[in-house]
Amino acid sequence: MKTNYRNVTLLGGYFKEKELLNRSVTLAAVYDRFSESGRIRAFSCDWKEGMPDRPHFFWDSDVAKWMEGAAYVLSRENNTDLQNKVEHLIDEIERNQGEDGYFNIYFTVCEPDKRFTNRDWHELYCAGHLMEAAVAYYEATGRDRFLRIMEKYADYIEKVFMIDKSAPYETPGHEEIELALYRMYTCTGKDKYLRMMAHFLERRGQSDNHEAQIFGAARYAQSHLPIRQQKEAFGHSVRAMYLYAGMTDLAVAKKDDELLDACRALFEDVTKKKMYITGGIGSTCMGEAFTAAYDLPNNTAYTETCASIGMMFFANRLFKADPMRDSRYADAVELEFFNGAMSGLSLDGECFFYENPLEIYLDERRRIISTHDHERFPITQRPKMFGCSCCPPNIVRLLASLGEYIYAYDEERDTVFINQFAESVYDDGERRVKVSTVYPEDGVIRIESDTPFAVRMPGWCKSFGADKPYRAENGYAYFEKGTVTVTLDMTPYLVNASLGVVRNIGKAALRRGPIVYCAEGVDNPALFTRYFDKTAARNAVVSKDERLGICLSVKGYRRLENVKGGLYAPLDEAFEDCEIKLIPYASFANRGESDMAVYLFYR
Amino acid sequence: MKTNYRNVTLLGGYFKEKELLNRSVTLAAVYDRFSESGRIRAFSCDWKEGMPDRPHFFWDSDVAKWMEGAAYVLSRENNTDLQNKVEHLIDEIERNQGEDGYFNIYFTVCEPDKRFTNRDWHELYCAGHLMEAAVAYYEATGRDRFLRIMEKYADYIEKVFMIDKSAPYETPGHEEIELALYRMYTCTGKDKYLRMMAHFLERRGQSDNHEAQIFGAARYAQSHLPIRQQKEAFGHSVRAMYLYAGMTDLAVAKKDDELLDACRALFEDVTKKKMYITGGIGSTCMGEAFTAAYDLPNNTAYTETCASIGMMFFANRLFKADPMRDSRYADAVELEFFNGAMSGLSLDGECFFYENPLEIYLDERRRIISTHDHERFPITQRPKMFGCSCCPPNIVRLLASLGEYIYAYDEERDTVFINQFAESVYDDGERRVKVSTVYPEDGVIRIESDTPFAVRMPGWCKSFGADKPYRAENGYAYFEKGTVTVTLDMTPYLVNASLGVVRNIGKAALRRGPIVYCAEGVDNPALFTRYFDKTAARNAVVSKDERLGICLSVKGYRRLENVKGGLYAPLDEAFEDCEIKLIPYASFANRGESDMAVYLFYR
Repeated sequence: MKTNYRNVTLLGGYFKEKELLNRSVTLAAVYDRFSESGRIRAFSCDWKEGMPDRPHFFWDSDVAKWMEGAAYVLSRENNTDLQNKVEHLIDEIERNQGEDGYFNIYFTVCEPDKRFTNRDWHELYCAGHLMEAAVAYYEATGRDRFLRIMEKYADYIEKVFMIDKSAPYETPGHEEIELALYRMYTCTGKDKYLRMMAHFLERRGQSDNHEAQIFGAARYAQSHLPIRQQKEAFGHSVRAMYLYAGMTDLAVAKKDDELLDACRALFEDVTKKKMYITGGIGSTCMGEAFTAAYDLPNNTAYTETCASIGMMFFANRLFKADPMRDSRYADAVELEFFNGAMSGLSLDGECFFYENPLEIYLDERRRIISTHDHERFPITQRPKMFGCSCCPPNIVRLLASLGEYIYAYDEERDTVFINQFAESVYDDGERRVKVSTVYPEDGVIRIESDTPFAVRMPGWCKSFGADKPYRAENGYAYFEKGTVTVTLDMTPYLVNASLGVVRNIGKAALRRGPIVYCAEGVDNPALFTRYFDKTAARNAVVSKDERLGICLSVKGYRRLENVKGGLYAPLDEAFEDCEIKLIPYASFANRGESDMAVYLFYR
Repeated sequence: MKTNYRNVTLLGGYFKEKELLNRSVTLAAVYDRFSESGRIRAFSCDWKEGMPDRPHFFWDSDVAKWMEGAAYVLSRENNTDLQNKVEHLIDEIERNQGEDGYFNIYFTVCEPDKRFTNRDWHELYCAGHLMEAAVAYYEATGRDRFLRIMEKYADYIEKVFMIDKSAPYETPGHEEIELALYRMYTCTGKDKYLRMMAHFLERRGQSDNHEAQIFGAARYAQSHLPIRQQKEAFGHSVRAMYLYAGMTDLAVAKKDDELLDACRALFEDVTKKKMYITGGIGSTCMGEAFTAAYDLPNNTAYTETCASIGMMFFANRLFKADPMRDSRYADAVELEFFNGAMSGLSLDGECFFYENPLEIYLDERRRIISTHDHERFPITQRPKMFGCSCCPPNIVRLLASLGEYIYAYDEERDTVFINQFAESVYDDGERRVKVSTVYPEDGVIRIESDTPFAVRMPGWCKSFGADKPYRAENGYAYFEKGTVTVTLDMTPYLVNASLGVVRNIGKAALRRGPIVYCAEGVDNPALFTRYFDKTAARNAVVSKDERLGICLSVKGYRRLENVKGGLYAPLDEAFEDCEIKLIPYASFANRGESDMAVYLFYR
């Protein structure tokens, strides 16, 4: 089973819009912010005490992710300016790489004696992102200089961690290098990288005391158990996703069913117990972490953008790894992309959310913040930059490689899988599939294929229609080659959560196709007194807003204040009819600070 | 307008039961705990570094409140053992009082050089409680030794704060001495105490920088404004109540309408915006304080027992002070007594809540506590003692002086006010009123009076009936002398909160008469999936449990899990009928740790 973003050409629709926004705005915006903050300059490695912009130990990774995204863009377009920027960074990396192969800005210029001494200082994480960028750049451009630099660094890492074992820890604090080494392996064919990757994965949770003491908890860094025994998602959610993605890669490489089972169990645990309706994962700011099953508070939801992107990595790998070819994996990718991931980017492409709450109630949070100083809420507006700015370049590399998620080719079945619905062409030189659709504006998808293909039957879709016969299996409709029009029922409907999510009992969220909706105060004054009419969702009025996307207006009710007034009064439940206007969740906070809710009461 | 607990004899019913429980159990239990913890022994003032039970600077106040309660008990019964305990403490106080009149255990034995140096170290607070105890003991027994000791201390306090002005602050951190000095004034007739009380009140908020910096906020200690300008309740809720009670006393003494207006505004602010349905006030553990209007979270409610008792002090004084003779004040006393105050005491009389939450959801708090270490919840079971053990002796003195709240005599109108309904006799030597009732078991109240009287028409009561004609005014029914039977409609009903309390939208609480109900998990498995039937409350089945009181069983519904299962599913609102069993809120947590909710959804 293979995916390759370079075989996919986006032609229109939401995916194409985001790809273009990234190429025209976000890619440059992130570079500019990184320039202004000193991150680009830092690669010259000439910072001295007393100078401004002291490098941080994760800056390499921020820029590396941007480089990776730039590489994907360069695979499609000649862009001398962009290429020069990347080449300049590679120049600096080459110039400042140690004789031994080491490269890390912070530990070169700030604390050279601290190299590889603290598991939580992100050196292997930074190395991993640089490796991913190097592989991407080589594959995109054929230029191998960066790749060779990183091969040399990989040699050094092998020496430190596998030969000399000179570091006081065995596995990375923040996972990432596992994924990267696997890409080095698939790119170069060198078994060594697979061995290194396997080493870092297999040593995890192997009773090292020093491994456990990261932010006080082994679970925080997924070091509480050996990987095959990890069946429940714990700890820092981005780290977790990168780990699980790496585990999936290893399961494929080694045909390791036990490991694959662990990956499946982790996917189940996340999607059945620890995921917001938007796909958001990691519900607390404390450690940016998973908490307990069903602990999914709306207003303090952390749900980091990078975690949603990480979940796309994990789910897409699991789809390829799992011979079941189950549509749930691509369902998860779709949910994340349209909601939890894209909410991380402003509609103008320049601003970012790190956290993506499911509810903003301005009055209440003002009250609480003014009086309970231990409470913490996500910010309400996307800034252009963060001190910890991992999410923006993660969006850049995601949006520059969307083809990765749209099609996959299954050699065994000689079938092209259509996982995401985008106006696009898949062409791997031997097979060609063309999809025409304005999805998710509507659910009509026309497919012309010169090869057998399978179309995902989304889990959210109550009715899947096709004008040709097909065989349904595990959420895919298998068709012979030819031309088929598939129709997905896009009727909006209300969704509620399991009773386990106690604080959402009595509330529902509105969904249309893959899009989860939210209501903002700017459209709905006194938002938190509004109830959905529980039967009206299907009659929602659908309208298209050029900026916000497909908007919905549904019948609802507005709860009125007790007639008797006062703080308490005999139950007196008066309502007036109202319209509730909803916009795609990912579009919230693009019109100034406002109340916002994904879940509202219904009656 | 006068009240005097000694004119009231309880004969039966809830008030009498609590009075007896206090005399037979709580009074002794609190003394024993104070003995075990070293508080009694501390009065010998011979503690030295290295000895156990280092005195705390508020220990005097804990024991003084107990002494005050003991004094009330001694007014009714000959109890040599109890009197000896009090006399022993007075011996020690007398023996250890400074030449100058000063008495405080901590600053005598631990930090003698720190006397009156820190506004927040509770010296004036302790002095106040000792004065209240001394007045109570003198009025109860005619023995004036303790009163004389405290008069000497008062002289010293006058010297320090009003003559020499040698302390680095002008007004108490924790209010209390204001009330106490007023009692000294009314007991002795000496104007000096009124002047001292007025001084401490009037200097409050008068721009002293050192006043403002208490726990970082002037509002915390009600020092943000001069008292006449204080119209909103802020800060530590017990301190606030004691202050407002003192302000009310001063308004009466000085016939100061502007000050009385401030007191009325504060009462309005608390009861209309900052009070739980149980009467609980002070919604956050941060500073044990009031927060913003309508910020009344159920599960983290702080609602200290002492604050409810303090609200009784304030409301009862306001009733007497306000020539409107408005029943809202006695309504507030009733609400506090039956709910927020009595929830502080276990049914066996030996254990205490300091905090009184409105919701306990064990699974959720386990989840949250295990994963969000910044969250804090009230404890779920009453212990016998606290390190900061102010609430237990506050309950003792309250339950030993309940007559204070039940009747009041208004000289101007020559009318006895019946504020609380208890099987009891009022006899002030000139007038006699006898009330026969099993209230709140039922709402039938028979009154025989040889003087005109006024019966409170409770705000919660939808229908007030009487077998004699009456004139209604401001919530009181005014009757001529004679025999009257009054009937209060005790039909249970659901109550909801103003929409301002956003987190209670869609929820209701059940109330019958003055009693607010709660449901416990022990009676109602899966408590948080249960909904009231919004029309069924009036048909509640009423039953009497010997321990818990009048219990109710009402028709309700149990929300069923989504048929499709999974974390999210299309809205599918299935219910099954169920009974919801409710007990008086004040009786919660007497049958082991359990989920508990005052508010449930309704449909």
